[in-house]
Amino acid sequence: MNISPQEGEVSRADRQALLNQTSVTIWFTGISGAGKSSIAIALEKALHTQKRVSYRLDGDNLRLGLSKNLGFSETDRRENIRRVGEVAKLISDVGVIVLSSFISPYAVDRDTVRKLHEDSGFRFIEVYVDCSVTEAERRDPKGLYRKARAGEIENFTGVSHPYEAPIEPDIHLHTEDSTIKDEVSTIIDYLVDEKIIDSDLVLKS
Amino acid sequence: MNISPQEGEVSRADRQALLNQTSVTIWFTGISGAGKSSIAIALEKALHTQKRVSYRLDGDNLRLGLSKNLGFSETDRRENIRRVGEVAKLISDVGVIVLSSFISPYAVDRDTVRKLHEDSGFRFIEVYVDCSVTEAERRDPKGLYRKARAGEIENFTGVSHPYEAPIEPDIHLHTEDSTIKDEVSTIIDYLVDEKIIDSDLVLKS
Repeated sequence: MNISPQEGEVSRADRQALLNQTSVTIWFTGISGAGKSSIAIALEKALHTQKRVSYRLDGDNLRLGLSKNLGFSETDRRENIRRVGEVAKLISDVGVIVLSSFISPYAVDRDTVRKLHEDSGFRFIEVYVDCSVTEAERRDPKGLYRKARAGEIENFTGVSHPYEAPIEPDIHLHTEDSTIKDEVSTIIDYLVDEKIIDSDLVLKS
Repeated sequence: MNISPQEGEVSRADRQALLNQTSVTIWFTGISGAGKSSIAIALEKALHTQKRVSYRLDGDNLRLGLSKNLGFSETDRRENIRRVGEVAKLISDVGVIVLSSFISPYAVDRDTVRKLHEDSGFRFIEVYVDCSVTEAERRDPKGLYRKARAGEIENFTGVSHPYEAPIEPDIHLHTEDSTIKDEVSTIIDYLVDEKIIDSDLVLKS
């Protein structure tokens, strides 16, 4: 198969120019209740206000769709993350800023997704949403820890399944000691430093 | 899982407004060599000229990525089309015009993808890229018919595998009797009639 763009085709660079932005996959990893989705939702809103096109991938739109034929065994969780990584790359190829929120407990799978992006010249930013199990269990926004402790959920990360924390994440957020507003600011500052979004735009908004 | 947008989240309508367009999945179906990809590439170019954001899904970016763990058995081809349908819906949810070019030989699978879209309020347009096997085999742009006739490719649609032609496609193109330019015009006229793109925009470009 021919995987190079053919002469005259619209390229990723063309779409980025049309959208006036640089695409990137921002990959939020952390245990359930750490705050991944809340931060992604707040960041999405901030980017939209600045007329940046972003899109969130999470369990809600993946597990009920593309990954609905997968369970929660180690094999299926790894295949789920592989699919999310491929979809993130496709949406990044559109020219869009992808905000991906999945526990993604295995370092090797996150590294595979990073490599998938970087080998094709796509930007990938790993954000470690760090929070102790104690605190996440105290928050328990979906009541999942309670169910996991009661044995109603198998393979629950942090309770009956391991979480491999990133060693060198691009951004390390400590959600026990910071506000969502500060966390969003940290990410936006990083995007500006990395020239993914324009500082003028941030200041003007 | 909560699948409704939470209060304050950026919605598909918000993204469509930002992009100043209505998203839609345009699904090209037809045998190998019928002209699906050539038409999609020309349409993509026309849309880009009009500052519409579109994205093409085809074997090149799917079979080497998301579907690289699938073969060409009936089960795997159906799973491939299911995944393409889910990805098309996600990219349509971004607010983008999706151009999907896959043989997609089974009517039931195309209907499933249509239902997947329409049940969630997404637009879906089936384009039947119609061409006889005789003509497609004469063109044989990738040399695949020759290989299929030599028995080097199993399950080759039109040779050793059935193609179920759409009964009521939204658009029916006869590529033996028309030019790519005419075919693109037919699709753009349809998009204007369906109020997916603005007629002023087409005339001004």
